[in-house]
Amino acid sequence: MTRNKTALVISAHAADFVWRCGGAIALHQQAGYEVTIACLSFGERGESAKLWKQEGMTLERVKDARRAEAAAAAAALGVHDIRFLDLGDYPLDLGADAKARMVDIIREVQPAWMMSHSRWDPYNTDHMNTTQFALECRMIAQAWGHNPGQKVLGAPQLYLFEPHQTEQMGWKPDVFLDITPVWEKKRAAIECMAGQEHLWSYYTNVAENRGNHFRRNSGGQAGGRDCRYAEGFQSVFPRTVDEL
Amino acid sequence: MTRNKTALVISAHAADFVWRCGGAIALHQQAGYEVTIACLSFGERGESAKLWKQEGMTLERVKDARRAEAAAAAAALGVHDIRFLDLGDYPLDLGADAKARMVDIIREVQPAWMMSHSRWDPYNTDHMNTTQFALECRMIAQAWGHNPGQKVLGAPQLYLFEPHQTEQMGWKPDVFLDITPVWEKKRAAIECMAGQEHLWSYYTNVAENRGNHFRRNSGGQAGGRDCRYAEGFQSVFPRTVDEL
Amino acid sequence: MTRNKTALVISAHAADFVWRCGGAIALHQQAGYEVTIACLSFGERGESAKLWKQEGMTLERVKDARRAEAAAAAAALGVHDIRFLDLGDYPLDLGADAKARMVDIIREVQPAWMMSHSRWDPYNTDHMNTTQFALECRMIAQAWGHNPGQKVLGAPQLYLFEPHQTEQMGWKPDVFLDITPVWEKKRAAIECMAGQEHLWSYYTNVAENRGNHFRRNSGGQAGGRDCRYAEGFQSVFPRTVDEL
Amino acid sequence: MTRNKTALVISAHAADFVWRCGGAIALHQQAGYEVTIACLSFGERGESAKLWKQEGMTLERVKDARRAEAAAAAAALGVHDIRFLDLGDYPLDLGADAKARMVDIIREVQPAWMMSHSRWDPYNTDHMNTTQFALECRMIAQAWGHNPGQKVLGAPQLYLFEPHQTEQMGWKPDVFLDITPVWEKKRAAIECMAGQEHLWSYYTNVAENRGNHFRRNSGGQAGGRDCRYAEGFQSVFPRTVDEL
Amino acid sequence: MTRNKTALVISAHAADFVWRCGGAIALHQQAGYEVTIACLSFGERGESAKLWKQEGMTLERVKDARRAEAAAAAAALGVHDIRFLDLGDYPLDLGADAKARMVDIIREVQPAWMMSHSRWDPYNTDHMNTTQFALECRMIAQAWGHNPGQKVLGAPQLYLFEPHQTEQMGWKPDVFLDITPVWEKKRAAIECMAGQEHLWSYYTNVAENRGNHFRRNSGGQAGGRDCRYAEGFQSVFPRTVDEL
Amino acid sequence: MTRNKTALVISAHAADFVWRCGGAIALHQQAGYEVTIACLSFGERGESAKLWKQEGMTLERVKDARRAEAAAAAAALGVHDIRFLDLGDYPLDLGADAKARMVDIIREVQPAWMMSHSRWDPYNTDHMNTTQFALECRMIAQAWGHNPGQKVLGAPQLYLFEPHQTEQMGWKPDVFLDITPVWEKKRAAIECMAGQEHLWSYYTNVAENRGNHFRRNSGGQAGGRDCRYAEGFQSVFPRTVDEL
Repeated sequence: MTRNKTALVISAHAADFVWRCGGAIALHQQAGYEVTIACLSFGERGESAKLWKQEGMTLERVKDARRAEAAAAAAALGVHDIRFLDLGDYPLDLGADAKARMVDIIREVQPAWMMSHSRWDPYNTDHMNTTQFALECRMIAQAWGHNPGQKVLGAPQLYLFEPHQTEQMGWKPDVFLDITPVWEKKRAAIECMAGQEHLWSYYTNVAENRGNHFRRNSGGQAGGRDCRYAEGFQSVFPRTVDEL
Repeated sequence: MTRNKTALVISAHAADFVWRCGGAIALHQQAGYEVTIACLSFGERGESAKLWKQEGMTLERVKDARRAEAAAAAAALGVHDIRFLDLGDYPLDLGADAKARMVDIIREVQPAWMMSHSRWDPYNTDHMNTTQFALECRMIAQAWGHNPGQKVLGAPQLYLFEPHQTEQMGWKPDVFLDITPVWEKKRAAIECMAGQEHLWSYYTNVAENRGNHFRRNSGGQAGGRDCRYAEGFQSVFPRTVDEL
Repeated sequence: MTRNKTALVISAHAADFVWRCGGAIALHQQAGYEVTIACLSFGERGESAKLWKQEGMTLERVKDARRAEAAAAAAALGVHDIRFLDLGDYPLDLGADAKARMVDIIREVQPAWMMSHSRWDPYNTDHMNTTQFALECRMIAQAWGHNPGQKVLGAPQLYLFEPHQTEQMGWKPDVFLDITPVWEKKRAAIECMAGQEHLWSYYTNVAENRGNHFRRNSGGQAGGRDCRYAEGFQSVFPRTVDEL
Repeated sequence: MTRNKTALVISAHAADFVWRCGGAIALHQQAGYEVTIACLSFGERGESAKLWKQEGMTLERVKDARRAEAAAAAAALGVHDIRFLDLGDYPLDLGADAKARMVDIIREVQPAWMMSHSRWDPYNTDHMNTTQFALECRMIAQAWGHNPGQKVLGAPQLYLFEPHQTEQMGWKPDVFLDITPVWEKKRAAIECMAGQEHLWSYYTNVAENRGNHFRRNSGGQAGGRDCRYAEGFQSVFPRTVDEL
Repeated sequence: MTRNKTALVISAHAADFVWRCGGAIALHQQAGYEVTIACLSFGERGESAKLWKQEGMTLERVKDARRAEAAAAAAALGVHDIRFLDLGDYPLDLGADAKARMVDIIREVQPAWMMSHSRWDPYNTDHMNTTQFALECRMIAQAWGHNPGQKVLGAPQLYLFEPHQTEQMGWKPDVFLDITPVWEKKRAAIECMAGQEHLWSYYTNVAENRGNHFRRNSGGQAGGRDCRYAEGFQSVFPRTVDEL
Repeated sequence: MTRNKTALVISAHAADFVWRCGGAIALHQQAGYEVTIACLSFGERGESAKLWKQEGMTLERVKDARRAEAAAAAAALGVHDIRFLDLGDYPLDLGADAKARMVDIIREVQPAWMMSHSRWDPYNTDHMNTTQFALECRMIAQAWGHNPGQKVLGAPQLYLFEPHQTEQMGWKPDVFLDITPVWEKKRAAIECMAGQEHLWSYYTNVAENRGNHFRRNSGGQAGGRDCRYAEGFQSVFPRTVDEL
């Protein structure tokens, strides 16, 4: 693998990248990728209930706390770069300015693959709007006439990481990634999320059970590949290969 | 790649493997795989119209002609082995005996991947019944208590090759395979199908256009991988990987 | 329109053709088609509750009563021919013999279009099995090597008529047929079904409301075609046309 | 609740009922239901790998071991009745005899609700064939002309319990059941499955995470119902209610 | 049932709540719920053809007429409260202001359940946009950081009421509500809609036929619950229960 | 056919109408229809890579070149009218002004049928947004209260023309149109697209293979209608007919 490969994760709220693809991030960083995370918001209004229950809380203080958590988690994963677009949440403002900024990031990063949320999420429209936004920005970044002279984007895969309550979102993983080698890093990142402690064991369970799915799909009862922790992803686009 | 990898194609009628995955077969043979083709029938009743229009035709003569064509096509593709199960067609007889024979073949071959038809085909119920049959036989071959002592099957991918009129079958390819290096072999195999000359240009067009899809998905307007001929496949099971 | 056009309705139980496509039958008969109905069973066990509640009822008496009703309804619709295959119901026996008989009928009739049940019906597996059976028999009837010398079948549309509780069956009509000119015949046929009087108003309501759908889709609020009664059908296969 | 309510679980292999609905069984038993489990097979060939790896194992010994495990698990859950139909597995024999026996059981039990597998399972065709079988037998049991004089079945809900790898099966739960009060019983039943110890923690994780889903859907961040363990089910049929 | 339960119906145009859930509204009011209806528009441009055909009609006069009809219908149903947001129709303006107002209403009402349109409606994009809007506002109302200090929303079910031409909208009811006790009120409300008299019998037919579906699903041929009029709803979220 | 029939094609970018429905346009023009094409943009940024690779290219020059190509192609097809809305591309600006202009065009044209893109296109969000836009404008054009006094729109079919990579878009054709009589015109129009020469043979292959599908669906092996070139379309709305 070349040292220069890059990847881009688009996370609607500050913590999404931790639960949903922290392992993929750490694993690819460790393998020499430079992974950039774009946090569209801090989840300051919608995903910070614990903070808001404190006396005298303000929006800025919530943002600061969430930013600090996310930065710490990114550090635990060894992330190359994390950007906070501060677009507001519940709902996200994904208008023309947001698109322009995101397209700039995509072109700057030139990712080998991108990652975002599920296509449908009735619990959280920010999530599905982010996916639509990611597709639109990917398209714009491919346009030769958008900021002519910049390097245009190729055709990176868009992976959809695991949502909460997968079946309600119509999300179906088609690839499982063995994250056993970096599990300790993901767990450390998870533990940075002080405000959402109720999710620590939830996503540890998920990682263990996805490990079971990895073993099943790599060999079944005949003896699959030993894997203790995994993450699942759904691909939007078909792959192109030289061998099946 | 090791020399010993194997693959198994389950083809409802004698010619299906040629149009739908001839390139994949030739490419993997060339790369050192041993590919086995199981033709469940000769397509003797349902896919031999041209022969039946001849005077004094009999079922045996049709079978012989179709077997000869299929064998010639297999040779053109460099196939390791081709088996004719002679189960009858329109409809196929996929009862207990057929299952037992197919499970034996699967266990003997121990394929790294398997291949069959689309899940739905209102034009041709033999096709979709074959896919169901393939799934059932794969399951039986994995059972430790089926013919105990034999080597049980692992968890090979089941690829669904391209049906005629893809959209009507609800078939969606998730992987494109570059068959440019073996296109001449596939075309030669196609030309063995004397009775279905009307399909020669059809499947040449398909291969060219799938080449376009390969280029698009490997790089888009920014310049994808040069590929002139491709085949598409739909995966039934998720993949397990160490890198996205 | 030529006098010789034909159509074939495959009805799992004796009464299905009345509720679900009685209008289509009467309308096409009136327009010069010769419509044949194949009743696979009398619905003697599963759809004759009212008869079975009578003292001393026997299977034969139920069959006779149901046959008489169906024949009367067919007469009311002006049907060319009705066949009772007597395959048993709940469940239907759709084995090799049944297939052979049905293929013979299809080839004899050479229908311009065929009609059967919805693809999915969790309430009544006879219905969905009949659709699968119709597709399989259609395929066999197209095979040049099945009973060589007989005239093979072309590619008639298979329409799926309206099931009970359409949404539960995943049935979606793509064509509405104006049956206003023959509504009185359909209503007369409905009234032949003495054992299922609770359905008379139900299917009258359906016909009225489908008339509303016809009006909507033929012109909307701007003034659609005046139509008081209609039936809806789902097409399995694409159409081929010279004008949109 | 009346003491006489009954329920029927149709389990393809001996252990399915434990992992997938052990909590529902124990909870309803505790609430006064009489729950009957119909094990179509012992999973003797396909789900007993650990036993088959022992020297000198025979089919009968495997069956005996699996029967003992299942019976112990049923006892741990407080099950009213468990029946072993011994239809063979991988594949199940679900022919006319099996149907007749199952219909008899359904009519005998007269369940308020039934339970079975997911509609689709490419890993295990026994599972999806069992669901189809359950629907067909339910239909037959409703027929007034099937064994006239017996009490016919009403319209019990058919719940589909949680398959392994839910997303691959297209299974979507629409109801979560709080099994916290009986979790110890379910865990005890799980531990009866000596041959599948690798699944103990897997299904404990599932129960914990479904508990999270229960909390989310009963109140979200505003404070849902405290629930530590849950099971999810997909309903085949619509409900009928007097209040939303 | 407590007297204080509340519910919220979000209706794109003035009359939608009458046809689609008038029975649910009247029934729950009668049972002690306080039901609030939010009419996003009067349907003044798109659903008032009859008025516009009068000489000298103006937008304000249409709005007044439609408001009066809706208010009369609400009164007939015994509605607790009806709000007219006057957002314009064809198309609705569902921007930031509309969201803020709707979130305020949701938080004020604190509904036990919410209700809106189908997810897809190619005939009427106002309908599907309203559903998306309802989901987004529900999410915002759950955010602790949105107008901190207000009581945040729990996790109410969102029911999708019956659209016109259900099959075209991909709408599938999973619950039927017996509205027989309040049918006269619903019919009275329907008759308030002077401008849409062509729909009176249409939705009476719907209510009768949904009554049939209620009977089928509550007992089938064995004798379901007597119900003469019903309404169907599709649930967006899973339920949480203590008994199946 | 009357001379006055009209049709309206809504094309996201300048060239879409050529590849995807050039045959339908030419055929209906030849049959006496007046076909209007509304090009929402020139595809100036996103679909003009070849031009942008030239030195000193400007947005205006690209637009001019693309407009000239599209106009030439329209002339080759014998188009009645082509309008360039110049809404910008990648992404299109489909706001209130765009809607107002499009509704005016729809009402002016009063099309017997409309045509646009597929419902889903992850590669190109302009395409799917155009379809949503077309549905919304169709709805507004039907509203009696929108610009009262104008002639309101009826209920024209909306056909979805063939996207690139049909299976990825979930597009399924339900009607095939024989374009053999106008193939030379379509090919001439295709050759006007100097900047996208790599697509000439691609869409010639498509037309040939759709011809095969036309033959299959009009008669199968028994001998379908001779057709060498065809186009496929998906209908959004059901048809209303007097004969099946």
